[in-house]
Amino acid sequence: MAMETTVSLSVNSDRLQSRLYKLAEMGALEGGGVSRLALTDSDKMGRDLVVSWMTELGLDIAIDRIGNVVGTLKGQTDQPAVMMGSHIDTVSTAGIFDGNLGVLAGLEVIETIVDAGITPVRPLSVAFFTNEEGSRFAPDMMGSAVFTESLALETALETIGIDGKSVADELARIGYLGEDTFPSVSDTVSAYIELHVEQGPVLDELALDIGVVEGVQGISWSEYTFHGTSNHAGTTPMSYRQDAGVVAAAVMSYVHQLAESMPNNQLATVGSIEFRPNLVNVIPNYSRITVDLRNSNESELKRAESELEAFIASLVKKHGVRVEKKVLARFEPVIFDSNMVGKIESLAKESGMSTKRMFSGAGHDAQMFAPHCPTAMIFVPSQDGISHNIHEHTTPRQVTNGANLLLQTILKLCM
Amino acid sequence: MAMETTVSLSVNSDRLQSRLYKLAEMGALEGGGVSRLALTDSDKMGRDLVVSWMTELGLDIAIDRIGNVVGTLKGQTDQPAVMMGSHIDTVSTAGIFDGNLGVLAGLEVIETIVDAGITPVRPLSVAFFTNEEGSRFAPDMMGSAVFTESLALETALETIGIDGKSVADELARIGYLGEDTFPSVSDTVSAYIELHVEQGPVLDELALDIGVVEGVQGISWSEYTFHGTSNHAGTTPMSYRQDAGVVAAAVMSYVHQLAESMPNNQLATVGSIEFRPNLVNVIPNYSRITVDLRNSNESELKRAESELEAFIASLVKKHGVRVEKKVLARFEPVIFDSNMVGKIESLAKESGMSTKRMFSGAGHDAQMFAPHCPTAMIFVPSQDGISHNIHEHTTPRQVTNGANLLLQTILKLCM
Repeated sequence: MAMETTVSLSVNSDRLQSRLYKLAEMGALEGGGVSRLALTDSDKMGRDLVVSWMTELGLDIAIDRIGNVVGTLKGQTDQPAVMMGSHIDTVSTAGIFDGNLGVLAGLEVIETIVDAGITPVRPLSVAFFTNEEGSRFAPDMMGSAVFTESLALETALETIGIDGKSVADELARIGYLGEDTFPSVSDTVSAYIELHVEQGPVLDELALDIGVVEGVQGISWSEYTFHGTSNHAGTTPMSYRQDAGVVAAAVMSYVHQLAESMPNNQLATVGSIEFRPNLVNVIPNYSRITVDLRNSNESELKRAESELEAFIASLVKKHGVRVEKKVLARFEPVIFDSNMVGKIESLAKESGMSTKRMFSGAGHDAQMFAPHCPTAMIFVPSQDGISHNIHEHTTPRQVTNGANLLLQTILKLCM
Repeated sequence: MAMETTVSLSVNSDRLQSRLYKLAEMGALEGGGVSRLALTDSDKMGRDLVVSWMTELGLDIAIDRIGNVVGTLKGQTDQPAVMMGSHIDTVSTAGIFDGNLGVLAGLEVIETIVDAGITPVRPLSVAFFTNEEGSRFAPDMMGSAVFTESLALETALETIGIDGKSVADELARIGYLGEDTFPSVSDTVSAYIELHVEQGPVLDELALDIGVVEGVQGISWSEYTFHGTSNHAGTTPMSYRQDAGVVAAAVMSYVHQLAESMPNNQLATVGSIEFRPNLVNVIPNYSRITVDLRNSNESELKRAESELEAFIASLVKKHGVRVEKKVLARFEPVIFDSNMVGKIESLAKESGMSTKRMFSGAGHDAQMFAPHCPTAMIFVPSQDGISHNIHEHTTPRQVTNGANLLLQTILKLCM
């Protein structure tokens, strides 16, 4: 009986689309896209809107001390809940799907089930986690890391952002320093599943409907600060210089070449840089860069890290500058639950969707759950692979495919 | 009679020192040094202080439409004046001597002559010129360039600074948008001489008293902006990227290697950089760097410029990014008046000072006068060659040597 019901159910595509675009109005950028950095006023507006939808749907709403919000539909039993989720914070130049899709599709799945008059056996939750992007506060995936007890709450609350403000102060300021606490995930969550845009070019290039995600590649974020000597650009012979800027440039070029020279999709990005005093005619005495290294193979990632360390050690000696290193984030590659991965793949095929098994290039809240409960992810295509960019796009049909596959998977998990 | 007087005259070292340190209080930085970017409130305070000293000395004060200030002691005749000068604007991490010494030593020379009851045959002027450093508004030497008609007043006034404000608005705001106009320099200035700290290590290393400056090396300032595509750092294969940051890094490394590979003291500095969106996990779609190239040989400087152009052309093609170039400043090497250079050298030797003929590595207001009237400069040592740095230092004895040599030279020129 349940089976027939599930097979016939599908999400309300228009309702999901309208919510995606409504949420995109919070922190909207001129010319499209959004900027909703974690715990800013825009983030508060987005949070308030999603919470209002959860409330309309009659979900029990819990807000924990790091500002994670969980909306739960009661089940026929008190067994551990099936949880869907993602994030609604964004980078400062974001599209409207990254994170938001997973949260709003989860909401849509619950509403579809409620509309169908179905009461799931297990409670069914949809969550959005604080500061997944890490653009304002490092590390990223902060909320889900605290939720899964892999990051201490106090450490997270004391984190200072790029604008000098603390997570605790900003949570309090926007009214999301909650008081709810959750027992350990392994006791309360029976499965976690996250729908997300691929954020890469693979599905779009191959014209496939669904990415069945087997895991998440490892991430290594470091910040290097180099201290040289500032001096007049016109009177200091090249051989007398301790130019912190030249050192930063050499590191940028090196990590780029390193990634291109390594197999197994090693990625390297220097996304952020600062010179001081940053004047045209003064040799920089200070430079700061961030290095983002990613690989789905832990030993390869370690190799990239150690080769970079060795290069920097010789470089600073050669240029007579001093280096400081700060690890901003480090996550080993994650492998998802093979049963769930297989279930998602078969349900997609049953629905006539084309699929490909793949690793996620980006970090996701799901990876924090993987060690504690059966976890998986569903990807839908990103047009041209464009992500963290206002031109990020996924078609309504692709969004609906992903949401319906999420629905079918949830019906299997919570019945 | 005049001769004997001149030989016996010397400046008041204590008065000069106290003025240097008094002026250094305007825009003083914690831990020493000053930040007095052109046309800021600190610059206004410095200007007001120097103008008050000119007034006490009874000089005729003229302020022109670009905010240059000229204080003049009447002579026995109306022949073209002998002018001393420099600047009192600074970089944001400056010492207290750069520019200020030339202005305050000029003031001291006039006061010494007045105190001695001498009325020079020619009028004797001391000037400070607007925005010599170019740290806030490009090009540098803006005031002296307008004064010598090598830069159009309107162009200078319309210049927008790094903070988005215009020269005209800032001049008006601080009350230095003057109304005085000067006839052409060749008609009104019989000679220009500027005392300055070397800002390089040569005199200090060789333990010499005086640098007799034969000219100024050429300066080429360019700003390059690279436009790529911003994308997710974790999901975009290296081969798919148009990373504007990697391109900027390659240019930085290239100009540094180019300068080291060229003879004749080619210098290259990338002092300023900007990435957008400047986030750890987003590939930069925008990078901006400044390139400062200097050489005392024009053909070598041209060669450096063209080799850089060729490198960038191939680089942007390889990385699929777009480049914009803006010339911020371009000055050919300048040769000073051989008679004045010789006179300064012989007067120094007569006074028992050790000297070395040299080119200036930095740009100076003097180079704007060189095409129009006999022009020269006197250098005193900079400890360890440190410049554009709060630790810039020149000893009182070295300062006094330079001021006395300036005095002796002036007495020869204005009698």
